[in-house]
Amino acid sequence: METPVVGVLGGGQLGRMLAEAGHRLGIKVVVLDPLGEASPAGQVTHGAIQGSFNDAEKIQELARQVGVLTVEIEHVNCDALDAVVAAGTPVQPSPHSIRLIQDKFAQKQHFAAHNLPLGAYREVASAEDVAAAGQSFGYPLMLKSKRMAYDGKGNAVVANEEGIGAAMEALKSTDLYVEQWVPFVKELAVMVVRGATGEVTAYPVVETRQQDSICHTVLAPAASTQDVQQRATNIACKTVAALEGAGVFGVELFELEDGRVLLNEVAPRPHNSGHYTIEACEVDQFEAHLRAIVGLPVEGTRLAVGASLMLNILGTGQAADAQALMQTAMSTPGARLHWYGKAGDRPGRKLGHITLVADDISDLRERLVQLSPNTAQEVLYGAGSRVGIIMGSDSDLPTMQAAARVLDDLNIAYDLTIVSAHRTPDRMVRYAETAVDRGLKVIIAGAGGAAHLPGMVAAMTPLPVIGVPIKTSTLSGVDSLHSIVQMPRGVPVATVAIGNAMNAGLLAARILGATNPAIQQRLEQFREDSKAEVLDKAARLEEVGYEQYLATTATREVK
Amino acid sequence: METPVVGVLGGGQLGRMLAEAGHRLGIKVVVLDPLGEASPAGQVTHGAIQGSFNDAEKIQELARQVGVLTVEIEHVNCDALDAVVAAGTPVQPSPHSIRLIQDKFAQKQHFAAHNLPLGAYREVASAEDVAAAGQSFGYPLMLKSKRMAYDGKGNAVVANEEGIGAAMEALKSTDLYVEQWVPFVKELAVMVVRGATGEVTAYPVVETRQQDSICHTVLAPAASTQDVQQRATNIACKTVAALEGAGVFGVELFELEDGRVLLNEVAPRPHNSGHYTIEACEVDQFEAHLRAIVGLPVEGTRLAVGASLMLNILGTGQAADAQALMQTAMSTPGARLHWYGKAGDRPGRKLGHITLVADDISDLRERLVQLSPNTAQEVLYGAGSRVGIIMGSDSDLPTMQAAARVLDDLNIAYDLTIVSAHRTPDRMVRYAETAVDRGLKVIIAGAGGAAHLPGMVAAMTPLPVIGVPIKTSTLSGVDSLHSIVQMPRGVPVATVAIGNAMNAGLLAARILGATNPAIQQRLEQFREDSKAEVLDKAARLEEVGYEQYLATTATREVK
Repeated sequence: METPVVGVLGGGQLGRMLAEAGHRLGIKVVVLDPLGEASPAGQVTHGAIQGSFNDAEKIQELARQVGVLTVEIEHVNCDALDAVVAAGTPVQPSPHSIRLIQDKFAQKQHFAAHNLPLGAYREVASAEDVAAAGQSFGYPLMLKSKRMAYDGKGNAVVANEEGIGAAMEALKSTDLYVEQWVPFVKELAVMVVRGATGEVTAYPVVETRQQDSICHTVLAPAASTQDVQQRATNIACKTVAALEGAGVFGVELFELEDGRVLLNEVAPRPHNSGHYTIEACEVDQFEAHLRAIVGLPVEGTRLAVGASLMLNILGTGQAADAQALMQTAMSTPGARLHWYGKAGDRPGRKLGHITLVADDISDLRERLVQLSPNTAQEVLYGAGSRVGIIMGSDSDLPTMQAAARVLDDLNIAYDLTIVSAHRTPDRMVRYAETAVDRGLKVIIAGAGGAAHLPGMVAAMTPLPVIGVPIKTSTLSGVDSLHSIVQMPRGVPVATVAIGNAMNAGLLAARILGATNPAIQQRLEQFREDSKAEVLDKAARLEEVGYEQYLATTATREVK
Repeated sequence: METPVVGVLGGGQLGRMLAEAGHRLGIKVVVLDPLGEASPAGQVTHGAIQGSFNDAEKIQELARQVGVLTVEIEHVNCDALDAVVAAGTPVQPSPHSIRLIQDKFAQKQHFAAHNLPLGAYREVASAEDVAAAGQSFGYPLMLKSKRMAYDGKGNAVVANEEGIGAAMEALKSTDLYVEQWVPFVKELAVMVVRGATGEVTAYPVVETRQQDSICHTVLAPAASTQDVQQRATNIACKTVAALEGAGVFGVELFELEDGRVLLNEVAPRPHNSGHYTIEACEVDQFEAHLRAIVGLPVEGTRLAVGASLMLNILGTGQAADAQALMQTAMSTPGARLHWYGKAGDRPGRKLGHITLVADDISDLRERLVQLSPNTAQEVLYGAGSRVGIIMGSDSDLPTMQAAARVLDDLNIAYDLTIVSAHRTPDRMVRYAETAVDRGLKVIIAGAGGAAHLPGMVAAMTPLPVIGVPIKTSTLSGVDSLHSIVQMPRGVPVATVAIGNAMNAGLLAARILGATNPAIQQRLEQFREDSKAEVLDKAARLEEVGYEQYLATTATREVK
């Protein structure tokens, strides 16, 4: 394949992973970095130039060696990039977009002009301006430098009017603006690929968590509703469409409590929130970036695994901390390690990252507990029920408990609650319509008499619904059975025997096991155990004869 | 992490992918290759020594730069490796194992002594010896050089006694042996990791296909029964346990028609049949090899995706052929490209490879059709039914066809046949017990009267079984319903309404859709369409009134 050599301004971990993607594609990557060959990227690629990515002469030296120039950091000399373009070497994305993004205030103005949803913000030139903004936006307030703000640098939280002076002092800049505090429930991010002709393709929506303003974990996909994910994807695509040039862009967003999504900011390059794509997506962000900037097609931004979590290895000042985490990662199923080869491990420094993949969020939680119990508690607490068990009344619980018990035995996570079709119809609608978004894979519904719950839930979700007919005093549950099983064409309910909630639990396990070998194996063990139990009884019956057997053993109905 | 520099004899594509794994782990890799920095591996790593991997002096030069030495090709100077070990630098795997594997006859003798199952073989010194072997083994017969035999080189097929002279001529060697022709149904391979203390861990069993004796495709997992896979895994582990030293080993095996598995041969290094692990497994073979030889733990040899196919890009002499394939790969969902950076593309040369991943074999087939229709036809023909539809009698077909039709509409692959519990009990047992191995995820079984088929099948498989009660003339199907639904505790059958096979098909789709977003999306569309149909009818009824509606419209029962 005839592909140009790619030059990258910056030789950090993003440049390193770009070079690694280049190796796979047969695309040579040359970097410009103050550390040259000793930089994270320089260590893994031939051809590193030592120098600042702000040095116009060094940038020109790099440009002469390559077919196309790109960046792994946005704080570069854009005038020099303009000169490179003028001299005939393409720069992707466009220096115009990089310049725009360097100035966070200009970025906001640009996106506001493109009707993208933003939190309120305002330029400020003095403490009086900040106080006026505080009056109108309320406190706390974010005071920000327009330039060189990243990883918590260049930002200061103003708690109240008295704090304005100290915040302005801390930022040591007069080029400031303020942002209204956004009461987000989640921070989301979407990597978007922009092709040579401006077409955009989005990666999945992920949820990011910061620790001391530095990215700590990224969960993919985000545990948000389909609606929120669609909204986030649309905003991210529209945002990147409003920029110029080819490559991947990292779009950071806020999810609000009412489901609205606001644009936060954009990075014109691969981004920490996209590292998970190396293991979790069909084509990773680094390969997508290279393909986009050299004009090759990009296909495969979907997830190739069920769920994924990226964990940054942040320096603590104690080398042993990172080493212990890496050792644990190497013994954790589904974990893969990326080490950046940086010298020193000062606190907060990104030394490497670990990506964990799993079949679904439940598996992911189990694996994360092994890798980092604190992170599991923080990021995935309460996530991961695969089965929802509902019943019309607490009088059904003595029957329905058997479903929960068998799922407990098979180590399958579930939620259990009361939802009545006739007494809480709104609750039932909400339960059914949000089931997919909440990550449920199967619903078990028990009901008696004119038993409408299983069928109504099935009418409002694409998930398989298992119906348990509860035994009734008047018609022994034949009323419940017929109400549940005789569904019209188009809306199936998987019906089990009257009162047999244990079988409903087992059926849910079989459904999950169809695509989950670990669960299928536990079911095989269950079948072996059941067989052994019957054979034991047969042996005893043959040994002692029927009279003594009946006299000494409490038989139980298994129907 | 304190890890030694790793030296590799050989700088081809295996060395290149070892270096790439090293980059992720922060392990430096130095290679020795006649092409030096221009070799596939030399292009992507710092520190390539130009020289032959048979040159004792160059090997010593490499050994002085590294903490541990390994190989990416077995045809190396083992005396020089012994000297390296004697001088204090460890070599992994042990030179003793490499020397053993260099001589295919000695390898067979060694494994035979360890009671591993092998095809018949015999040393031959003359044409008379070959003729005698032909008498005892039959023809065709494989005549092989003991050394330097790989990718079809050093092998000759002897069709009959008259062909012996020409075959011996062709091999130009006097160091020969013969192997009985093994009538295999599949060629299997297993990558096995051997840790520093001799413990072995296997990757999944894969199926390999050769084109002109060169590996062409690798399918993971192999489409063999669980029994065969278990047998292959056990043999592979025992084989590698019988060797010495740390690292990954590629074990090639034959599957025979009766389900027996024979050991073919072993490579003491990463292997072409393990390239799929980069995208498809939690930790790939190259990273596993590095970890094993430097003494780090290895965890994660499982598949992280449902199914995978690796396709070698072989030179044809026409550069345009490889380019066309690579362009198609970049537009194929789930495909990832690896280019080796070799100069020239002479026929049969391994220029790169493409790995395709998918949720399951059905998805894989769809994607492979896009990438390479011929390969799809050859490798995955007939594979991939997700649903099995069975019925007790052809008189059930008018009812059961509705299940097939809805699966057709939703583009879900299925098998459909007749299995009678009472008239073909053996066939029913075989059907149920092999269902998982055949790749089925759900079974739909229709039966009437004393309807035993669904329950008996459910008793012999861990898969979810959906029962369709067929309407009967005597009891209107209530007999079928109660026979199917009233299963004992421990063996669930998901029962749908009497005669409602369409709902059985939809329920199967919901079960698959629970973990397959594409199918779930098609189900959502189905629900939208059903809704629109009812709303259209409502609008028409409101418009024309009930009398005209009944006079002009054929209503149909949907129960």
